[in-house]
Amino acid sequence: MDHLLTYYECDETGHPTMSMLLSMFSTVSNAHETFLGIDKQTVLSTGGAWVITGYAGSLEKELPHFGEHVVLGTRAVAYNRFFALREFWLRSVDGKILAKAQCQFVFMDLTARKLESIPPQLIKPFHSPEMKRLPRIRRPHDLTENEPTHHVNYRVRFFDIDANHHVNNARYFDWLLAPLGDDFLRQHRVKSFAIQYNHEVRPQQVVTSVFTKQENDGHLTSQHQITIDYKECTKADFEWY
Amino acid sequence: MDHLLTYYECDETGHPTMSMLLSMFSTVSNAHETFLGIDKQTVLSTGGAWVITGYAGSLEKELPHFGEHVVLGTRAVAYNRFFALREFWLRSVDGKILAKAQCQFVFMDLTARKLESIPPQLIKPFHSPEMKRLPRIRRPHDLTENEPTHHVNYRVRFFDIDANHHVNNARYFDWLLAPLGDDFLRQHRVKSFAIQYNHEVRPQQVVTSVFTKQENDGHLTSQHQITIDYKECTKADFEWY
Repeated sequence: MDHLLTYYECDETGHPTMSMLLSMFSTVSNAHETFLGIDKQTVLSTGGAWVITGYAGSLEKELPHFGEHVVLGTRAVAYNRFFALREFWLRSVDGKILAKAQCQFVFMDLTARKLESIPPQLIKPFHSPEMKRLPRIRRPHDLTENEPTHHVNYRVRFFDIDANHHVNNARYFDWLLAPLGDDFLRQHRVKSFAIQYNHEVRPQQVVTSVFTKQENDGHLTSQHQITIDYKECTKADFEWY
Repeated sequence: MDHLLTYYECDETGHPTMSMLLSMFSTVSNAHETFLGIDKQTVLSTGGAWVITGYAGSLEKELPHFGEHVVLGTRAVAYNRFFALREFWLRSVDGKILAKAQCQFVFMDLTARKLESIPPQLIKPFHSPEMKRLPRIRRPHDLTENEPTHHVNYRVRFFDIDANHHVNNARYFDWLLAPLGDDFLRQHRVKSFAIQYNHEVRPQQVVTSVFTKQENDGHLTSQHQITIDYKECTKADFEWY
């Protein structure tokens, strides 16, 4: 998919935000489904929905600026009874990969709120290989114990909830990253990241975003956690340029 | 521009949010510029930037759902030395207009932070008529005096600031509307709106969002104001289905 990078997908640095990058990946994923003839009705009729359990990816130091054309791509990598793995990339028009990520999905029964096996009509059209064991995507590291932590609370707002009645997966990145502070975010760029969604955040809840960060051997990293009443909902880490 | 409506552009009702609708309008506006050969460099070299002073528009009761294809359109209506008027619409693939808006732009010297006359190289390519007096877009009504008001404060976050170093014009809608409450927003849809941006909101500031609302002769309307230290930054009104 060709995509014109707009100013509202980019922050003060002129480059796309993590949340918008993930939203673009969602868009190309939806377009892939639509292109293969899987429409909203087909998904709804199963009584379930795809749920993302985690992402891991990396970004080039030189990212595109708003006003530039980029190309979004995706590929269904593999699946088994309960899990599906998908790959995303954002490349320049001349073919250079600028950002890429892998993403793991499960399928959830929306009434019982529990995992169910992936309905064949939703996965067969992709012609990806069925595998007993899927490659695992990298999981985020824990908060480091000996570092001071910084807490910020966010109340879930009406407009944080998307049409799937979930807090937008991408919105989590704003909660995760904003506590690092404006100066840090102006001066650094994400090199790699991993995020894992463990427990759903619901409307009206107040989440707490905590992080630790340190520099070792020239590698600047941060570890993040989103909790509700001390229960972990989301864990993430980032390496920084 | 063909556009696939994604779940993250839509709220719990499954329909696009006001902020996303305005963002889509920005996208087609940018694409129009690009299509006519006006690139970012041409704009930057003038030392100025387009600034939106206000929108007014209306929406159909039946809006598209996420997962549907829609078509975005725009047209440069007219301009004079200081103002430019643009029209936007969102229509179904079979041609029904579902939302439309008019938008007034000025051109701002970014260093002096004041109005300047529109550089010819940025407006001539649109071949819109030059007019001494432009049609005025509808201005929002004031807060009503005899109604209780409800205040909510929002701190401007790093990710509210876009690549133009402004609070995203569209982001204002979340601040304006969220105070109406989740139940109200689930049960009502915007029928028409007008918004006027008077003073810029800057990073780290805390804005106060205030509204009044009432029903007269079956017309449900709300009037909104965003202030910083009691100074009006933005005024808006909405009529509701």
